Amino acid sequence: MPRSVVLLSGGMDSATCLAVARAAGNSCFALSFDYGQKHRAELDAAAHIARQMGATEHRVIRIDLAQLGGSALTDSAIAVPEAGGVGIPVTYVPARNTVFLSLGLAWAEVLAADSIYAGVNAVDYSGYPDCRPEYIAAFQLMANLATKRAVEGALLEIRTPLISLSKAAIVRLGNELKVDFSATVSCYSADFSGAACGHCDACELRRVGFAAAGIPDPTRYQF
Amino acid sequence: MPRSVVLLSGGMDSATCLAVARAAGNSCFALSFDYGQKHRAELDAAAHIARQMGATEHRVIRIDLAQLGGSALTDSAIAVPEAGGVGIPVTYVPARNTVFLSLGLAWAEVLAADSIYAGVNAVDYSGYPDCRPEYIAAFQLMANLATKRAVEGALLEIRTPLISLSKAAIVRLGNELKVDFSATVSCYSADFSGAACGHCDACELRRVGFAAAGIPDPTRYQF
Repeated sequence: MPRSVVLLSGGMDSATCLAVARAAGNSCFALSFDYGQKHRAELDAAAHIARQMGATEHRVIRIDLAQLGGSALTDSAIAVPEAGGVGIPVTYVPARNTVFLSLGLAWAEVLAADSIYAGVNAVDYSGYPDCRPEYIAAFQLMANLATKRAVEGALLEIRTPLISLSKAAIVRLGNELKVDFSATVSCYSADFSGAACGHCDACELRRVGFAAAGIPDPTRYQF
Repeated sequence: MPRSVVLLSGGMDSATCLAVARAAGNSCFALSFDYGQKHRAELDAAAHIARQMGATEHRVIRIDLAQLGGSALTDSAIAVPEAGGVGIPVTYVPARNTVFLSLGLAWAEVLAADSIYAGVNAVDYSGYPDCRPEYIAAFQLMANLATKRAVEGALLEIRTPLISLSKAAIVRLGNELKVDFSATVSCYSADFSGAACGHCDACELRRVGFAAAGIPDPTRYQF
């Protein structure tokens, strides 16, 4: 069975991405990051989802991005904004996906995995530059010059099966693949139990996605 | 003064690279990694060199690459080999420079720095794939698609002033720029005090470099 590293935040997109990777017949090595995010409940969700979806292994790497600052998701001095702002919001974490994919690349090389799955999306998203197809293509190109394994001829593919789907299409796809959305945490301000704020960008995208898909929304809210 | 992030391992190449960055008129933000390396004495060396060379700030990020394994530099079950093997040696750390540059990229964005300096070398080196010019060019391309700052038009340059120099030329350059080589630690098996083993690839490249440059070698050995 081919091996894949799957970046698993614990949100609905990465859970659906793991389901796609499993359905494609991969042995999945789920990778999460304890990076100083305020919404740490997503890590419990990721562990739960990895078990539920039959990941071969789940690992959490600790890397303190809060130490570098610059984001509402890691800096207690910057509030998570309400949904609906203009431009790239302050929830953007500098170079986050590059750091996550790089660590995924390291693990993929050790595992002799042929692919990394990432649940990035460039349709119903917050405008983060490191979610766009041109970024992913450039990362793959770099990755295949970076490692001993690539130099020896075993190329790596960065797979982003959700990148051009609407949020509604992701909800429908996850539903078909039996993703337990009730176990996923998307909210940037989720409390310790994973209950959502209902006001942030991530909550808004998620709510509208379920409504547009016509599928009941299992999200637990704080109110 | 333009700001630069400088990757600083504590070895002779990164120390010389910091000297080049300072000589070019940059405010230098030195970045080191506590990644589970056996030769941790290099971190003390890095702190010392950063002060000596007038870095504006020095930060150490902890990231446990030993958790992923796969290298003689982080795995106690794999011995550091003698110099002179064939191919890419077991001291190669999977995706190390990609992880380090990615975290450098994150800090560069927060600092609004225009460049990252890395003391990689592709002449007298151990054959690591992530030291080659084509890799560095691909990383820069990816980096300029990855960040909010790049999207807004402020492009980042990855500068590798040592990449095509011989080890002897690096010794001469460092010497001209008043690098205190006695404070640097290159050895993969350095003891707690920074004394070198004299047998590994890094020791051999360093020893031959000083000899070829005709400059006295201040390295402290364990014997």
